[in-house]
Amino acid sequence: MSTDRIYTAALLVIGDEILSGRTQDANIAYLAKWLGVQGIRLKEVRVVADEMDAIGEAVNALRVQNDYLFTTGGIGPTHDDITVDAIAAALGVPVIVHPDARAILSGYYGDKLTDARLRMARTPEGASLIENPRTKAPGIRVGNIFIMAGVPIITQGMLAALDGKLPGGAPVLSRTVAAWTQESAAAATLAAVEKAHDGVQIGSYPFWREGKTGANFVIRAVDEALLATVAAALMAGLQEAGIDPVDGEL
Amino acid sequence: MSTDRIYTAALLVIGDEILSGRTQDANIAYLAKWLGVQGIRLKEVRVVADEMDAIGEAVNALRVQNDYLFTTGGIGPTHDDITVDAIAAALGVPVIVHPDARAILSGYYGDKLTDARLRMARTPEGASLIENPRTKAPGIRVGNIFIMAGVPIITQGMLAALDGKLPGGAPVLSRTVAAWTQESAAAATLAAVEKAHDGVQIGSYPFWREGKTGANFVIRAVDEALLATVAAALMAGLQEAGIDPVDGEL
Repeated sequence: MSTDRIYTAALLVIGDEILSGRTQDANIAYLAKWLGVQGIRLKEVRVVADEMDAIGEAVNALRVQNDYLFTTGGIGPTHDDITVDAIAAALGVPVIVHPDARAILSGYYGDKLTDARLRMARTPEGASLIENPRTKAPGIRVGNIFIMAGVPIITQGMLAALDGKLPGGAPVLSRTVAAWTQESAAAATLAAVEKAHDGVQIGSYPFWREGKTGANFVIRAVDEALLATVAAALMAGLQEAGIDPVDGEL
Repeated sequence: MSTDRIYTAALLVIGDEILSGRTQDANIAYLAKWLGVQGIRLKEVRVVADEMDAIGEAVNALRVQNDYLFTTGGIGPTHDDITVDAIAAALGVPVIVHPDARAILSGYYGDKLTDARLRMARTPEGASLIENPRTKAPGIRVGNIFIMAGVPIITQGMLAALDGKLPGGAPVLSRTVAAWTQESAAAATLAAVEKAHDGVQIGSYPFWREGKTGANFVIRAVDEALLATVAAALMAGLQEAGIDPVDGEL
């Protein structure tokens, strides 16, 4: 655990079902929050189709730009599950049947370990396994790449198995100030307060509810005391601008 | 409307709030379905932070690889809204105050058209506007890039304004066959049926409900008659494999 180094991650979501709109993605937000707790920042997400080239190109771009690359989807037993093949090809290594994965599946399926099921024991050469407490077929770690399932409840189980095990930095903390106002009325104040405080970001997120306009102003920093200072400065600045802020989210 | 050319699009989601997990994205699935109706295929999605370089790099990669590039987020009045600046820089054109956008905002805000609000009239040079029926501040079209709001209800209004106006090909149709089975038991059948029919994709989407395991098998093609043929072949194949399929989604 180091506070001066920033650790980053990317997520590659592999799945025609997301790109067709059939399935609403749930892994991005879950992984983002999980990474935050580990002190790792999610820098980029890509969603690509179940195609060898598209997967390989994205994997090679994202794994070198980040400390960690997570992938979701395409590791099941059916013909459209090509993630392992695509990542092995991208890395230039062969696909093998991992002995530990075969043992896990063999223990689960017994003499019903068909060729299709054995597909779930295939990994790029040199990989280790990530435990899947839900449905046995394991996730895969190869280098800085973490290959996980697409079904959110399975992905979440695999992440639980990785909890606290990946080196990370200081988690980004956040604190929210809000007001019933058009965000444009607060814009000058937000910019001035952010500029006056190093290491702080302020995001403005408008909403429309109950026939009224409001906005949440989310302050982000790695230091709790700094967050409190900036929240106080922002509250004071908004009041000066004739806005009536609340300390917290609306 | 042409049936022999495939039109593709990419989506670039711009927003720290998605990458921090604070906000659950809702634009990917909505745009995916809307594009499907227009006969345009969503090929790739990227999510990047509110940073000039990250936005510019993604814009230049995705706009040349696809017929259309949509962006969501970062076009409001506050300091963290830098999408217009980043896209103009990526295209190598200056940012101007668009006269029509200024007129729209002037009509709405009257003498309260502050500098912050006037930010929402800024566009890359050479752009045209996309109507925003909800909150007036328009979307922006420049070349094949469609720059839209991040708030889903506003994005959806902008897409409604574009409905039927973008050249597209034949929409991808889908039909689902399902069964209470482990997908691994159906894997060989799925692969064989897909292989036997050109121009058809079959995706397998497992689920766990009511303590049981099931899977939806989604057949995709541009031809309704072909879909029916493949659905019948898949039903027959699954029955041969000892599985009891239903014609439709579970």
